Amino acid sequence: MDHNFRFLIPCALIILSHTALAAKPLSMPDILKASSPSDWRPLDPNNTLYVELPTGRVVIEMAPAFAPLHVANIKTLTRAGYFNGLAVIREQDNYVAQWGDPDNRHPLPPGIGKVAPEFDAVIPAQMAFTALPDGDVYAPEVGFSNGLPVARSTALHKVWLAHCYGMVGVGRDLDAESGSGAEMYVVIGHAPRHLDRNVALVGRVVKGVELLSALPRGSAAMGFYTKTEKPLPIKSIRIAADMPAAERSNLEVMRTDTPRFAALIESRRNRPEDFFKVPAGKIDLCNVPIPVRERAAK
Amino acid sequence: MDHNFRFLIPCALIILSHTALAAKPLSMPDILKASSPSDWRPLDPNNTLYVELPTGRVVIEMAPAFAPLHVANIKTLTRAGYFNGLAVIREQDNYVAQWGDPDNRHPLPPGIGKVAPEFDAVIPAQMAFTALPDGDVYAPEVGFSNGLPVARSTALHKVWLAHCYGMVGVGRDLDAESGSGAEMYVVIGHAPRHLDRNVALVGRVVKGVELLSALPRGSAAMGFYTKTEKPLPIKSIRIAADMPAAERSNLEVMRTDTPRFAALIESRRNRPEDFFKVPAGKIDLCNVPIPVRERAAK
Repeated sequence: MDHNFRFLIPCALIILSHTALAAKPLSMPDILKASSPSDWRPLDPNNTLYVELPTGRVVIEMAPAFAPLHVANIKTLTRAGYFNGLAVIREQDNYVAQWGDPDNRHPLPPGIGKVAPEFDAVIPAQMAFTALPDGDVYAPEVGFSNGLPVARSTALHKVWLAHCYGMVGVGRDLDAESGSGAEMYVVIGHAPRHLDRNVALVGRVVKGVELLSALPRGSAAMGFYTKTEKPLPIKSIRIAADMPAAERSNLEVMRTDTPRFAALIESRRNRPEDFFKVPAGKIDLCNVPIPVRERAAK
Repeated sequence: MDHNFRFLIPCALIILSHTALAAKPLSMPDILKASSPSDWRPLDPNNTLYVELPTGRVVIEMAPAFAPLHVANIKTLTRAGYFNGLAVIREQDNYVAQWGDPDNRHPLPPGIGKVAPEFDAVIPAQMAFTALPDGDVYAPEVGFSNGLPVARSTALHKVWLAHCYGMVGVGRDLDAESGSGAEMYVVIGHAPRHLDRNVALVGRVVKGVELLSALPRGSAAMGFYTKTEKPLPIKSIRIAADMPAAERSNLEVMRTDTPRFAALIESRRNRPEDFFKVPAGKIDLCNVPIPVRERAAK
């Protein structure tokens, strides 16, 4: 009896704790605390942009898997120093911040021009995809692939990046050809998902989006600044791999193909914090956070 | 024959124009241009708040139909001058701007305290409701009621306001009772729909949201400002009805229960502008604009 009892108590505790977990997921801070190094990945310095503003650095992780031509163009423009001294020329509330050449005086480097649209891509044979269970207004399926919010349609055999907050796109003119990458925009409002499949998205801001989202709104049409409004200068845009290690941001991003990330999604679907009286039990693609943190010193 | 021909041409034009309309809806500017006075409604001065900032005026249309107790509290606080001299104390990126008493030195006026939750309401027998056709991640049904984005569940017999960009809510503590209205927040990022049914929404910013969304982000937890960060003062909050006509904003809002608004929804589902190569054919509740304009002088 004594033995049985000693056996039963741990079992009961396990059952109780399992029940409690099922009823109430861990909170996001607890999930981050419980994470192990393998739940995180470093940024690839060859595909990381630093947008240096007078107010600080915006870090962008580029997505060459989705927009290889645009990313190649952006790297060429960056290495040619094209962006240095340009400015944030457009700040449209609940929409986008966009940078470019305010005076149209900077010629594009040789070999750089418009490129073929990369608005969506054929679903690759091997594709990491963490699906969300709650559906989506715009696409048959949504989820995460390599740290990026994506939408896809197996009927169309297509996958595309989704215009969530902080996503980076390439401005273009009216024609179907895409822009060169000389003008990029960052989403700073409610996800303009109607732009999906109409613009090439090239990456995501992983740090510093508030340096772009908190700028004064432009008062000309579409949020462009007027001649008398002072746009924020872009000191430079650089590729992390081109910089000395000491000057690089030392960030890592939570992987989106792990049980830990699945637990995070569940926690955000059913918020366990005491504040929430009626947890939604659902989540929209663009409300799932993709955690970023400083890497611990080795 | 001459007569027949003269009859046929207008018919052909009607058919052609109808076909063109079916294939390509009017753009939003064209819809606004074609609108008639009956497509618009004035704001009710008794339920309109002016938040006067050093940078300009934010105009809020309150929603007493959804949160009568909170709106009554806010009117009492406003008329007692409670808000005058307070400040924007919280500015959290992609989330909310919130005002309140930065030093906790302003006592609430007599009779003002926490109120019963008004997080959702029983669906009224007569309810204006313009439904959206494309579904929603969070709720069984979404649409517009009296100019406000709403969600509802006929199974639950409940309707509630949705946390779209620019919606105004009442901050509360952890308990289920709601806040007094002394601290209000405005959504300035991707719709935090997980707050739906967890907080009392009391209205919508109809003008000037950019005066709140473009403020520097607070660097303390949850976007609160630290002691060394300078919060933007609230000069005053006033009710339009309490002000001389000459000092009132003269705005009108597009009605959401008209064929004109239905046409606007259709235009935003299938964007007719040349820019769009693959119109979404869908729209998310919080991506539908609710137009606001200056009233023409009489």
